[in-house]
Amino acid sequence: MNFLQRLRHIQRKNNSLLCIGLDTVPTKVPESLYRWENPQYEFNRRIIDATKDLVCAYKLNIAFYESVGEHGWYTVHQTLARIPEEIITIGDGKRGDISSSAEHQAHSLCYDWEFSATTVSPYMGKDSIEPFIRRKDQCAFVVALTSNPGAKDFQYLTVKGKPLYARVVETARKWNTRGNIGLVVGATRPKELQHIRKLAPAMPILIPGIGAQKGNLEASVRYGCDARGELAIINIGRGIIYSSTGDDFAEKARVLAMNYRDQINTYREKHYR
Amino acid sequence: MNFLQRLRHIQRKNNSLLCIGLDTVPTKVPESLYRWENPQYEFNRRIIDATKDLVCAYKLNIAFYESVGEHGWYTVHQTLARIPEEIITIGDGKRGDISSSAEHQAHSLCYDWEFSATTVSPYMGKDSIEPFIRRKDQCAFVVALTSNPGAKDFQYLTVKGKPLYARVVETARKWNTRGNIGLVVGATRPKELQHIRKLAPAMPILIPGIGAQKGNLEASVRYGCDARGELAIINIGRGIIYSSTGDDFAEKARVLAMNYRDQINTYREKHYR
Repeated sequence: MNFLQRLRHIQRKNNSLLCIGLDTVPTKVPESLYRWENPQYEFNRRIIDATKDLVCAYKLNIAFYESVGEHGWYTVHQTLARIPEEIITIGDGKRGDISSSAEHQAHSLCYDWEFSATTVSPYMGKDSIEPFIRRKDQCAFVVALTSNPGAKDFQYLTVKGKPLYARVVETARKWNTRGNIGLVVGATRPKELQHIRKLAPAMPILIPGIGAQKGNLEASVRYGCDARGELAIINIGRGIIYSSTGDDFAEKARVLAMNYRDQINTYREKHYR
Repeated sequence: MNFLQRLRHIQRKNNSLLCIGLDTVPTKVPESLYRWENPQYEFNRRIIDATKDLVCAYKLNIAFYESVGEHGWYTVHQTLARIPEEIITIGDGKRGDISSSAEHQAHSLCYDWEFSATTVSPYMGKDSIEPFIRRKDQCAFVVALTSNPGAKDFQYLTVKGKPLYARVVETARKWNTRGNIGLVVGATRPKELQHIRKLAPAMPILIPGIGAQKGNLEASVRYGCDARGELAIINIGRGIIYSSTGDDFAEKARVLAMNYRDQINTYREKHYR
């Protein structure tokens, strides 16, 4: 299966566009996990076991694993091994570099850890992301428009009468000859998301920014999906995984994940029926 | 000392603008190193010991260490511990992300490994690089213009009559209120380097692309330096470290590093005397 087939398959099977962001900070896991050899992994394991029938994807921001040192590398491996094979795994590192450097970046993410998808920064152009899209079953999500204040610094600059982010989207679409490039668009920018979905009707869009960053969930579903009400991947991290500081954290996360999935599906029915 | 003082100090002390790129691929180190516990570190150690009086900086592209797995993290620590304190160390990862993700990225590079400098991608704007410039003795080099073919995809787009890379330079200069932001400009683009140096007369410029990528050394010195013939950091990686596949690799690297340093100084004398 190519990446789009994999994504549609799991979105249909679990009836879910929800992606849970496993941005697990070791100091934030419940104290009762400290007796485990690797509390960061134990936290992830319980969240995965409690939610794997409710999601289409899990996203790991690599920075949260790198920053704990050498064990972090192994924790990524362990965590990925726990995720059922058909669920999409996204290695979020905003990578991209020149020639052999990009090759080495991609080696870690696509071949060693073997994430089903990665995130890449567009600034250095096509050859900087090429090693991330060699395999048809893997996808590189190009950062198009972000939810942070700094998005204004460059992403909205006007290039030939259009904002730069639109140029990035059009260019990524041209690069997408193997159907395995996606886009990252922050949930705090619904009008622009609508614009981007029109420019790229058939590309998957990863939408972070719901929850802690207060993005708009209804607009993310309405404007982020393709014509069939699919291919939007709506990421929620802190808003789900840190719902309780007690031993019931995984159960609480399940309740929240179910609420989000159902809310997303209510919006899908409203806008795509 | 702030970063600029540190840089000028070592450039004067070692009379060198040369930076050696320790982009060490474990499979490319001489076979005789295989008997060491960590051949990648052993290779770095010998290169450092053979060249530390000839350089102003060492640059480690993080991808080359990540890609070997969990030991890579430790190899970075070991390598940094071997480099004399006054020499600048650059953690080249093209990082930058949103809020807590950028905090975690910077934690690894600036506080855990404690590189004196990092490289960051501009696309996500100021807050995405803010955690990398908290300390005045550390510098973030913003990727402005790269040496690869993909530079043409976005970096040369026209924004208000100027190329995007010039806008990135002007914006980075505005952000540089603490004097600890630099720029990355590929050595294959001498005309643009001249333009960028005019836009940012007092910022350090990291110039990769000499050697394997066939950048122009004389132009890099002539246009990359500030008015005193300093603040250009000229990176050469494969062109120095892989000069021999035998046991004499460190001696050969020393000869090449000396040649490059002297050649650079010849050009400095020609253009800055």
